[in-house]
Amino acid sequence: MLPPNLSYAQFRNALRELASIVGESNVISSDNELNDYADPFGPGPQSGPRAQRFSASAAILPASVDHIREILRVARRYHLPLWPVSTGRNFAYGGAAPRLSGSIVVDLKRMNRVLEVDETLAYALVEPGVTYFDLYQHLREHGIKLWIDPPAAGWGSVVGNTLERGFGYTPYGDHAAMQCGMEVVLASGDVVRTGMGGIEIGKSWQLYKPGFGPSYDAMFMQSNFGIVTKLGIALMPRPQAYRLAHLRFREEADLAAIIDTLRPLKLDETIRNHAVVEGAVRFAAGVSSRAQWYEGEGAMPESAIAAMVKRLDIGRWNLRFGLYGAEEIVDAQFAITKRAFSGVKGMRIEAVRYAGGEVPEGGADRNMAGVPAMSAFRMLDWRGGAGAHVDFSPICPFTGSDAMRQYSVAKARMAEYGFDYYGGFTAGTRHLHHIVAMIFDRGNPQQTEAAYDLLRVLISDARAAGYGEYRTHLAYMDLAAAQYDFNDGALLRFSEAIKDALDPDGVLAPGKSGIWPRVWRSRRGYT
Amino acid sequence: MLPPNLSYAQFRNALRELASIVGESNVISSDNELNDYADPFGPGPQSGPRAQRFSASAAILPASVDHIREILRVARRYHLPLWPVSTGRNFAYGGAAPRLSGSIVVDLKRMNRVLEVDETLAYALVEPGVTYFDLYQHLREHGIKLWIDPPAAGWGSVVGNTLERGFGYTPYGDHAAMQCGMEVVLASGDVVRTGMGGIEIGKSWQLYKPGFGPSYDAMFMQSNFGIVTKLGIALMPRPQAYRLAHLRFREEADLAAIIDTLRPLKLDETIRNHAVVEGAVRFAAGVSSRAQWYEGEGAMPESAIAAMVKRLDIGRWNLRFGLYGAEEIVDAQFAITKRAFSGVKGMRIEAVRYAGGEVPEGGADRNMAGVPAMSAFRMLDWRGGAGAHVDFSPICPFTGSDAMRQYSVAKARMAEYGFDYYGGFTAGTRHLHHIVAMIFDRGNPQQTEAAYDLLRVLISDARAAGYGEYRTHLAYMDLAAAQYDFNDGALLRFSEAIKDALDPDGVLAPGKSGIWPRVWRSRRGYT
Repeated sequence: MLPPNLSYAQFRNALRELASIVGESNVISSDNELNDYADPFGPGPQSGPRAQRFSASAAILPASVDHIREILRVARRYHLPLWPVSTGRNFAYGGAAPRLSGSIVVDLKRMNRVLEVDETLAYALVEPGVTYFDLYQHLREHGIKLWIDPPAAGWGSVVGNTLERGFGYTPYGDHAAMQCGMEVVLASGDVVRTGMGGIEIGKSWQLYKPGFGPSYDAMFMQSNFGIVTKLGIALMPRPQAYRLAHLRFREEADLAAIIDTLRPLKLDETIRNHAVVEGAVRFAAGVSSRAQWYEGEGAMPESAIAAMVKRLDIGRWNLRFGLYGAEEIVDAQFAITKRAFSGVKGMRIEAVRYAGGEVPEGGADRNMAGVPAMSAFRMLDWRGGAGAHVDFSPICPFTGSDAMRQYSVAKARMAEYGFDYYGGFTAGTRHLHHIVAMIFDRGNPQQTEAAYDLLRVLISDARAAGYGEYRTHLAYMDLAAAQYDFNDGALLRFSEAIKDALDPDGVLAPGKSGIWPRVWRSRRGYT
Repeated sequence: MLPPNLSYAQFRNALRELASIVGESNVISSDNELNDYADPFGPGPQSGPRAQRFSASAAILPASVDHIREILRVARRYHLPLWPVSTGRNFAYGGAAPRLSGSIVVDLKRMNRVLEVDETLAYALVEPGVTYFDLYQHLREHGIKLWIDPPAAGWGSVVGNTLERGFGYTPYGDHAAMQCGMEVVLASGDVVRTGMGGIEIGKSWQLYKPGFGPSYDAMFMQSNFGIVTKLGIALMPRPQAYRLAHLRFREEADLAAIIDTLRPLKLDETIRNHAVVEGAVRFAAGVSSRAQWYEGEGAMPESAIAAMVKRLDIGRWNLRFGLYGAEEIVDAQFAITKRAFSGVKGMRIEAVRYAGGEVPEGGADRNMAGVPAMSAFRMLDWRGGAGAHVDFSPICPFTGSDAMRQYSVAKARMAEYGFDYYGGFTAGTRHLHHIVAMIFDRGNPQQTEAAYDLLRVLISDARAAGYGEYRTHLAYMDLAAAQYDFNDGALLRFSEAIKDALDPDGVLAPGKSGIWPRVWRSRRGYT
């Protein structure tokens, strides 16, 4: 695999120059080692004309901002497309793999310093290689009474997850919103610090995001406008106490009432964390495997789901949320929430109150207590074989009718393709992240292709109903971006005007989020 | 006054073309009428070589996005600098006046529709001409149980205040953070909708800000990259109850303890609103005038302040905050806050609990209850004469030591120039907005010039200590921007690269926030 438009000799020369920057051992170009940079869950045909390949030609591991600037100099000269990743754990959306095959992955995992933690003002400043486990460990080792907010899988990069607008399960679950201050290397090699970071001896870089004048942090998210090398993130002071609640609901149709009950509690901040409403299958996948419940063809029938729900004593829908603060506040909030949800017939509620320093058992509960875990990966065993998944991730207005509509359409369409509805809703304030996973066995070509086709259909169904994706797999970035087509695609036109101004050589992540620099624009829509 | 580089004949032709778009009566060019677009509080010399003039050559009042697009077409052809304002109530920072003299003010006040209010999902979509009073009235008339969050002066535009990153006093006080979704007309005339607004039939424009890919809303704030014609803003559901607390503190040195006590209560969200810590003079200006307390030369001496504090029975520092929610929560939170502040010797606390539908007396309290008021303007009478003020507005880290440092330096410097320390701290989560007003009599040239000189010195003092402005007067936009000088001014370089890409003719608000388009860049630093 070569970078597009480069001869083998040119590529070899480019790699030699890159190696002179970071050292031979930090340039990876053997097929074997490059496997680490392939999409581990790649859906779609693996061969033939429709084959989905998002393959790197090489990977390079800089250790510093200066390394990155020198890499960019070489890239601009050779017109090398680069694909920066923090640590590349963007599983289900492409992992570390580049959108444009032949790109060189710039893997920032060696830049892994926790640069600062301020316990008083409750923030951290980290480099891209710092994982949630690393940051958690750092706080524990130094006896710092701050919580992190881990996403479902704790092995990912804090910077990477935040830039992709990932989310977690404590009151600091909106990672992009909790971000404050960045250092960014532009395609030109220029280094910008956003917000108050413009003041060199400043004291407020991680305290007040906007700074003076236009604010740019949000335009470096899900974007290809720069390489983020430092990022500030707010951390939650350890609460005096917290209470984790688990509610089980009986009927499929309860979803609407659950959402409509939850909304006012989120709006008035009785519940401040990212409450999660999970379907039965997703809940069951944490504690069992599919074969225990159903081995027939196609999606699990209602009868099998009903039997599973009964046997596991789980809900048809399951709501988890946490309350955090002084004991008396947490108790009063719990009473309010319990009263509210008692309106849904058949609801059962369990809740445990912990002291702030206690750590609960069980991955999902640990996540709600700011403890990173990897238990989310149990889902990969649900269907057996080489478990993989891709995710359909539309934004859903926070109403019961919208949630029911998205759920019903997705479930029916998934059944058509032989997939169980495996999903749930994560509660923002006015929106829900509806996350639907298509689990498949990568060893099974039929399932792998079906997941790919199904994902496209789900995205199209959603768009027809007025819903859009917040994030998507490499294979559908162009499709998702094209759906934002107000005024003949003015938003994408705007993005590409900025892209061309900042990166005239088109070296940074061509195709990311559907944004193509002028020199690679003809690749739009091709994989 | 002509636009720079235009002959009188060219200007007359341009005005004729503009009038053909919006009608004669919506083009203003007489000196008399243009007074409305001058800075009402302009500091600095009014004549001579150092004279501060930020004068419009004309003003134009479009009624629609199409009007704006046609105005831009004319502006690009004639190289006319435009200065868009929502309604121009940016008092203390320049009002409606343009940074570059001779610019044509584009006054959007005729575009004043409340386009949508969703009571369930708690937001509004408004045009730039909608004031806080208008929106409040709209909600009342329609019996909608949502609160607005007014800034100190309720007559301003919701869009304008939000774009300037103004703030209010309820839990929705961070206006920029509560903003969700924009429609923007670019200099090219292209119309962009941000975030989920890219989906033409979409349902989430005001529900989830980022959308898919890079997010741009924040870069249209305090900026000159586009004209915002629609803006979404979250509204707070009317709480069941709220309690407004007023705390008085005895000693000047209590400031550090007040701030350090307040910080953990803000961080753990016991207090969710923008609590305000006001100095004695600012508090006194709401209920008295300066001449009652002091008529000598220079700043009020400590003895006069002490006498005033005693007589008015106010605090040397005064803290106001609100608690919002269910009665039992509000009461529990009040007990916690009272306990916390009892650690500050001599503290006195008063608090009143209201039902959600009740409206308190008194402007500051009304603001905390989501009711717009104009009582903040009483400050103009503090010193007598033609009252005016300019504001020094640094960001302060949320620590007692930083607050004391900013306060002490400002107070001493203000005394040098004969000004009382008239200020306070508005509490974000990890930062404070330290707002210091220099009140002067515009009829008094000495005071008017002193305010101008003092403001520059305060900004410079702050920078030397590592603090930066969040917002500033026209006269000091270049100075404030230059203070963000990390990597030789990379942030401004970045802003201007984007500016040149989006507005190659330099027609939109040249000089705003220190950002100059290429064609006007030589004007930097000149007024």
